[in-house]
Amino acid sequence: MAAAAPPPPPSDVPGMPEIAPPSARRTLFARVRLAAPSDVPHIHKMIYQMAVFERLSDQCIATEASLTSTLFNSPPFQSFTVLLLEVSHLPFAPLPPPPQQNPTTVPAFAPVVRAINLDLPIEDPEAEIFASGAEGGGAVVAGFVLFFPNYSTFLAKPGFYIEDLFVRECYRRKGLGRMLLAAVAGQAARMGYGRVEWVVLDWNVNAIKFYEEMGAKILQEWRICRLTGDALSAYANSNY
Amino acid sequence: MAAAAPPPPPSDVPGMPEIAPPSARRTLFARVRLAAPSDVPHIHKMIYQMAVFERLSDQCIATEASLTSTLFNSPPFQSFTVLLLEVSHLPFAPLPPPPQQNPTTVPAFAPVVRAINLDLPIEDPEAEIFASGAEGGGAVVAGFVLFFPNYSTFLAKPGFYIEDLFVRECYRRKGLGRMLLAAVAGQAARMGYGRVEWVVLDWNVNAIKFYEEMGAKILQEWRICRLTGDALSAYANSNY
Repeated sequence: MAAAAPPPPPSDVPGMPEIAPPSARRTLFARVRLAAPSDVPHIHKMIYQMAVFERLSDQCIATEASLTSTLFNSPPFQSFTVLLLEVSHLPFAPLPPPPQQNPTTVPAFAPVVRAINLDLPIEDPEAEIFASGAEGGGAVVAGFVLFFPNYSTFLAKPGFYIEDLFVRECYRRKGLGRMLLAAVAGQAARMGYGRVEWVVLDWNVNAIKFYEEMGAKILQEWRICRLTGDALSAYANSNY
Repeated sequence: MAAAAPPPPPSDVPGMPEIAPPSARRTLFARVRLAAPSDVPHIHKMIYQMAVFERLSDQCIATEASLTSTLFNSPPFQSFTVLLLEVSHLPFAPLPPPPQQNPTTVPAFAPVVRAINLDLPIEDPEAEIFASGAEGGGAVVAGFVLFFPNYSTFLAKPGFYIEDLFVRECYRRKGLGRMLLAAVAGQAARMGYGRVEWVVLDWNVNAIKFYEEMGAKILQEWRICRLTGDALSAYANSNY
């Protein structure tokens, strides 16, 4: 598998002249497709990486089993939905057309594919762990977005709420996060939905700038209220 | 119908001695039940009242038809769900047991009933408009809560997101908002869900105090990002 034995990056070899990488390495093919239950091990690893990045790994108790039992219980877009980002140095073979489960209301999701020109080849230290079973070889899982329907009473329309958007560290700043977000927004627009919403930390100025460039407005006045843990359990048998 | 011809409130009759209202008027029976499509006209009126209260009526384009076509398409709790608050000066007759559509995963919602002792009788100027068809007479729709499942990847568990919680003006400060919120929290707890979340305006200190007393934490650092209107439509055919 090409990605499993990458050539050493030129800068890591002291005294060696810079070797031009194969031209194929200058192009990264990226694909966004619907995730399947067989993707759960990769999704789980990325959720944990995200928790570490946010310094919230102590709050991350998701397991492969708990993800498997709570995701993929509904048709795509009707409940919790995961789109997976894969990258490869070879073009992706077409996927079989998705089953059209609800032709009257839900457009099927056609995988989105892009070719990205790289200034420098990317070395992925976790290429083997994230090798995608979907392709014959060389494809790697690089990110995901998890979202689900929300609802606006003022619009009397559904929308999508994005719970997580994650791109693995070595693939960032290549437009791949934009590709994942645009895939959700595109699906919402094609379904006639009213809004796509998500949250951002108020000190994350780079993320806020990125989202505003994507066309989003930041709602400054609203705060999230969260009832969880023992405070929530107390309501199980309460007689309010 | 008792509520359609209320006795004038004693304080509104100058010079008259205070007349003790009938003792039945001192007790308000409140019931929270699953809403049905036949409740849409009342729900629509309350959504509009909420928009006026929030000074956002120009953004409220919901109609009875658009609500009907977007709500009630899934079993309760699996997608957009409305619980309705009714009040009456007479005790509520028991409702027929709800159909148990998914016995393995979703507990049915048993209506919540409370009797509230009032210091003063409530005069409802819109009692006729909001007369509830569900009861023989005297019951009035007083509020609603609309919510839907959300998902925490860290917990690998669903939760509920409350989009709207509304109590009509003359029924406020009686514990009825608490009753609606507790009904959602209780259902979440009984379903083993991880969180109940909603949003509040940062200047609404009374609401924040109320939510904190209910056990909620206010997340100060997060901001909502919203992609809507033309900015969203632009993604329908974009090639990101």
